[in-house]
Amino acid sequence: MAKTAVSPTRAENYPEWYQQVVKAADLAENSDVRGCMVIKPWGYAIWEGIQRGLDTRFKETGHENAYFPLFIPMSFLEKEAEHVEGFAKECAVVTHHRLEPDGKGGLQPAPSAKLEEPLIVRPTSETIIGATFARWVQSYRDLPILINQWANVVRWELRTRMFLRTTEFLWQEGHTVHATSDEAVEETRKMLDVYAEFAENVMAMPVIKGEKTAGERFPGAVATYSIEAMMQDRKALQAGTSHFLGQNFAKAQEIKFQSQAGELEFAWTTSWGVSTRLVGGLIMSHADDDGLVCPPRLAPAHVVILPIYKSDEERATVLAYCESLKAELATQSYEGEAIRVKLDDRDIRGGDKKWQWVKRGVPIRVEIGPRDVAGGGAFVGTRIGEKPQGMDRAKLVAEAPAMLAQLQQQMFDRAKQARDDASVVIDSLAEFEAFFADGQPGGLVYAHFTDGPDMEAKCKELKVTPRCIPLEPLLGDDGPGKCLFTGAKSERRAVFARAY
Amino acid sequence: MAKTAVSPTRAENYPEWYQQVVKAADLAENSDVRGCMVIKPWGYAIWEGIQRGLDTRFKETGHENAYFPLFIPMSFLEKEAEHVEGFAKECAVVTHHRLEPDGKGGLQPAPSAKLEEPLIVRPTSETIIGATFARWVQSYRDLPILINQWANVVRWELRTRMFLRTTEFLWQEGHTVHATSDEAVEETRKMLDVYAEFAENVMAMPVIKGEKTAGERFPGAVATYSIEAMMQDRKALQAGTSHFLGQNFAKAQEIKFQSQAGELEFAWTTSWGVSTRLVGGLIMSHADDDGLVCPPRLAPAHVVILPIYKSDEERATVLAYCESLKAELATQSYEGEAIRVKLDDRDIRGGDKKWQWVKRGVPIRVEIGPRDVAGGGAFVGTRIGEKPQGMDRAKLVAEAPAMLAQLQQQMFDRAKQARDDASVVIDSLAEFEAFFADGQPGGLVYAHFTDGPDMEAKCKELKVTPRCIPLEPLLGDDGPGKCLFTGAKSERRAVFARAY
Ligand SMILES: [Zn+2]
Ligand SMILES: [Zn+2]
Repeated sequence: MAKTAVSPTRAENYPEWYQQVVKAADLAENSDVRGCMVIKPWGYAIWEGIQRGLDTRFKETGHENAYFPLFIPMSFLEKEAEHVEGFAKECAVVTHHRLEPDGKGGLQPAPSAKLEEPLIVRPTSETIIGATFARWVQSYRDLPILINQWANVVRWELRTRMFLRTTEFLWQEGHTVHATSDEAVEETRKMLDVYAEFAENVMAMPVIKGEKTAGERFPGAVATYSIEAMMQDRKALQAGTSHFLGQNFAKAQEIKFQSQAGELEFAWTTSWGVSTRLVGGLIMSHADDDGLVCPPRLAPAHVVILPIYKSDEERATVLAYCESLKAELATQSYEGEAIRVKLDDRDIRGGDKKWQWVKRGVPIRVEIGPRDVAGGGAFVGTRIGEKPQGMDRAKLVAEAPAMLAQLQQQMFDRAKQARDDASVVIDSLAEFEAFFADGQPGGLVYAHFTDGPDMEAKCKELKVTPRCIPLEPLLGDDGPGKCLFTGAKSERRAVFARAY
Repeated sequence: MAKTAVSPTRAENYPEWYQQVVKAADLAENSDVRGCMVIKPWGYAIWEGIQRGLDTRFKETGHENAYFPLFIPMSFLEKEAEHVEGFAKECAVVTHHRLEPDGKGGLQPAPSAKLEEPLIVRPTSETIIGATFARWVQSYRDLPILINQWANVVRWELRTRMFLRTTEFLWQEGHTVHATSDEAVEETRKMLDVYAEFAENVMAMPVIKGEKTAGERFPGAVATYSIEAMMQDRKALQAGTSHFLGQNFAKAQEIKFQSQAGELEFAWTTSWGVSTRLVGGLIMSHADDDGLVCPPRLAPAHVVILPIYKSDEERATVLAYCESLKAELATQSYEGEAIRVKLDDRDIRGGDKKWQWVKRGVPIRVEIGPRDVAGGGAFVGTRIGEKPQGMDRAKLVAEAPAMLAQLQQQMFDRAKQARDDASVVIDSLAEFEAFFADGQPGGLVYAHFTDGPDMEAKCKELKVTPRCIPLEPLLGDDGPGKCLFTGAKSERRAVFARAY
C-alpha cells in the first residue's frame, strides 16, 4: 500500500487519525489554556464560510443578529437549580474583578475585589436573552422576535477533542418569541430545514432530520429536533438542534404579551444552534488518509497553483505564466462568486508544498513547470477522483467551475453511499444486539421502539443512543410495528447508533 | 423652536443626549450585568457593516483571521507585573469551574472545583497570541505572519457608557510578525491608513492620523499611531490605534527565527485594533437632536417605505404600490450592492412609525398614500438636508443611488466643517490656557511642544491631552517653532484636545 500523508490511517486508529488530520490540515492546535484550542487561519476560514452561509440563510428567513453579555449572574442559574436534583454545573465562574501582587512576586485575585454575586461565563445565553426579551415584549405588535447571536460559549469539559468538544467553542444561538404555538412550531421546523439544507448542499454532508426521543430532549423543551450525520467510523454526529420550548421558558422568564383581544398571555419560544463542532463533522465526513477534503462550496481556496522551476530564468517565465493563469481563473465564477485561486510561490521544496495543499484539502491543484509554459498547458489534479493529468490551459479555465460542481456532488454522493451502506432495518432485539456487539462495524439502525426505561436501559448497555425519529423516514418506511424493547405497538421507527 | 425627537438636545445636555440617542435609535441597552450592554439588532447591524468593511480591507492587505482562547493564564500576566510599579489589573478573574448548591437554596462556586491557576478573561490577547506565535515562527520562511482576530474582550470598568466604555466590548485585534524593522513599521503605517480610509470613506468621519506622544504610547510599544476624530462637543475620540512594537514583545515572548543567513534573531511585531467604540464615534459625529444619522455606506437600510392609508381598500392598493416600488428600488445598486429597502407595513400609528425611522437615521424615507398611488409619485424625505417633497416615482428610482452618494458626501463635509471650525493654531501658553478655560467651547489646538513632564503637567491641569502628532499636518504646517510649555525648539506641532 502506498504511504499516506496522514498517519495513522482511519483503519489503523480512527480517533488518532482525526487528531492528525486537524494538525496536518492546519485547522487548529491546543492552546496554553486547558481544553481551549487555537483555531488556525485555514480552520477559521472554513468556519467563516459556515458562518457566511448560515448567516445569509438566517437573514433570508427574517432573523436579525444581536449581541448579549458574555456573563450570566449566578442568580439566573439558581432558578434552574431549584428544579434539578443534585444540580452541578461545569462552567467558568468569575469571582473577582482585579488582580494584585501577592507579595511573593506573583499575582492573586484581589480579596478587596471579590464580586458580591459571582458571574458565570455563558454556557448558553438562554437565561440572559430571556430576561431581555421579557423587557422587549409587551404587545402582540412586538411579535415575532427573531434573533440570532454569533458568540463564544464555555462549558468546562474534562475530556476534550478539537472542534468536537472543547471548553470554549464558537456557535450561533437563535432565540425567537411568537404569539402562537403554531408559529413557534413552524419556526422550529423551518430552522431545522435551514440546517439540513446547508449541511447537505454546502457541507456535502447528508443528514437525517428528526425529533429527539424524550430522554434526549433539551431540558425544558416540548420537542427537540436535530440533524444527524454519520461519520466515517459509522458513529452518528448531532450536527444541529432546534427546540420548540412551548411556554415553558416564557413562564420561567416572564415573557408575556397583551394579545389582540387584550388579554395577557405567555409567549411561545424556540431556540436553535450549531457550533464549531460542524468543522469536526466536516472532517469526519470527508477527510481521508491524505488529510482534509474541502467541499468546494466551503473551500477557502478552490484552486492552488504551484510553480515548478529549477533556475532563476525558469522561475521568471513560470511565475509570469502562473500569475496570468491565476487572473484568468479568477474571471470564472462558481456559485455566484469569483473562483478563489491561490498562487503559492513560497520558496520551499515542491513536494512539501504540494502535500501541504493536499492535506489542507484544496479541491483543484495545478502544477506549472517550464514544459507546461512551453505547451500552453497545466498539470491538474483534483483532491478526489481521477489521477492528475496534463490539460490544455484554456480547457482548464473553461471547465474549472464544472469541475468544482462535480467535486461537490461527488463528495455528497460518496458520503451518502457510505451512510446508506451502513444503514439497516432491524426488527428483532437479538439482531439489534448482534449489530452493536463489540467488534462489529456498527452503523445506523432503523427500529421500532417505545420511549421509556426499557429502551434506555438496553441502549445504555450497548453504548447506543436513539439519535432521532426521522421526519421523513428513509428506511423501514413501513407503517406501525412492534417495539424491539417492550413488544408494545410502535407507530414509527427511530434511528439508533453510537454517537459523538 | 420645533420640538425635537430626542430630549435633551445636544445644547442642553450633551452626555445625556448621547444616552438618549442610543436608546431612541434602538442601538443598545443596559443588561442585567453591570457595565455590559445588550447590542440591539439596529446597533448590531451597524457593527456588522463596520466589520464587513474592515474585514474586506484586512484581507485585501493579506491578513487572515484566526481565533485564540477567551482565557489567559494568570501566570502570563505575572511577567508583565514584574515591570509595573503597583501593578493592579481590573479584569474578570475565573477561579472555579463548577457551581453547586450552597445548602441554603442557592448556588456557590464549588470549593472542590477551585482552579489551581486562576484564568483571566482576555482584556487583550497580546500575551496568548505571542505565546502561540513563538510556536509558529521558526524560520524566516514562516514570516510575515499577518493575523487578525474578531473577539469580545473584558476590562472591568467602574464608570461605563454604552459603546464608548463598557466592561465587555467587541473588537478586532491585528497581530503581525516580521523579519525586519522596516517591514513592521510599514505594516503599522499601512493599517493606520486602512483605518483612516475606512473612517473617512465609510463612516464619513474625518480623522487625523498621527503618532502618539511618549506619555500616550501603548506600554511596551516603540511607536503608537492613532486616528483621532472630533465629536460634536469638540472633544476628541481616539478611534483606532496601530502599534509598532519593535522587538520588545518578541523578546518577552521569545518569538525568534532563523534568518536567511542562518542566525537566530528576534522578530519584529505590530498590533492594531478598533472596537465597538466606533459606533459611539459614529453617533457623536453625525447624530442630531432627532436621533441617529446613518452614513449610507453603513446604513442597515438605505430607504424605508412607509405606507399610509385609512381604509382596508386603500391599504390593498397602497401596499401593492409599495411592494412594487420596493422591488424596483432594489434593482438599483449603490456601492456595488443592491440598494437596501425596508417596507414597514406594521400596523402602528403612522407618526410613531415615521419617527422611529428618523430616530434610527435611515438616509431616505418614502411615504406613500393613496394620492401618490394615483399620481405615480412618492413623498420623499432625506435624513439631512432639504424639506420632504413630492417626487415622480421613476425619478426617485433613478436618482436613489445619487441621493445616497450625495448624503454620504454631505455628512463627511458637515463633520469636517465642524472640525475645521473648531481647530486653531496657537503659539502662546496664555492663549492655550484661555482656549481650554472652563466655559469655553474647546476644540483642537495645533501647537508646538516638547515631549515631557512640563507639557504633561500643564495638560493635566487643563484636563487636556496631546492627541497625536499629525503625520500630514493639517494646520500650522509652518516648520519648526518654540515649545509652548518649555520654550525649547520644537520640530512639529501636536494636536491637543479634551478627549473621551
Ligand atoms: Zn422554580
Ligand atoms: Zn521580567
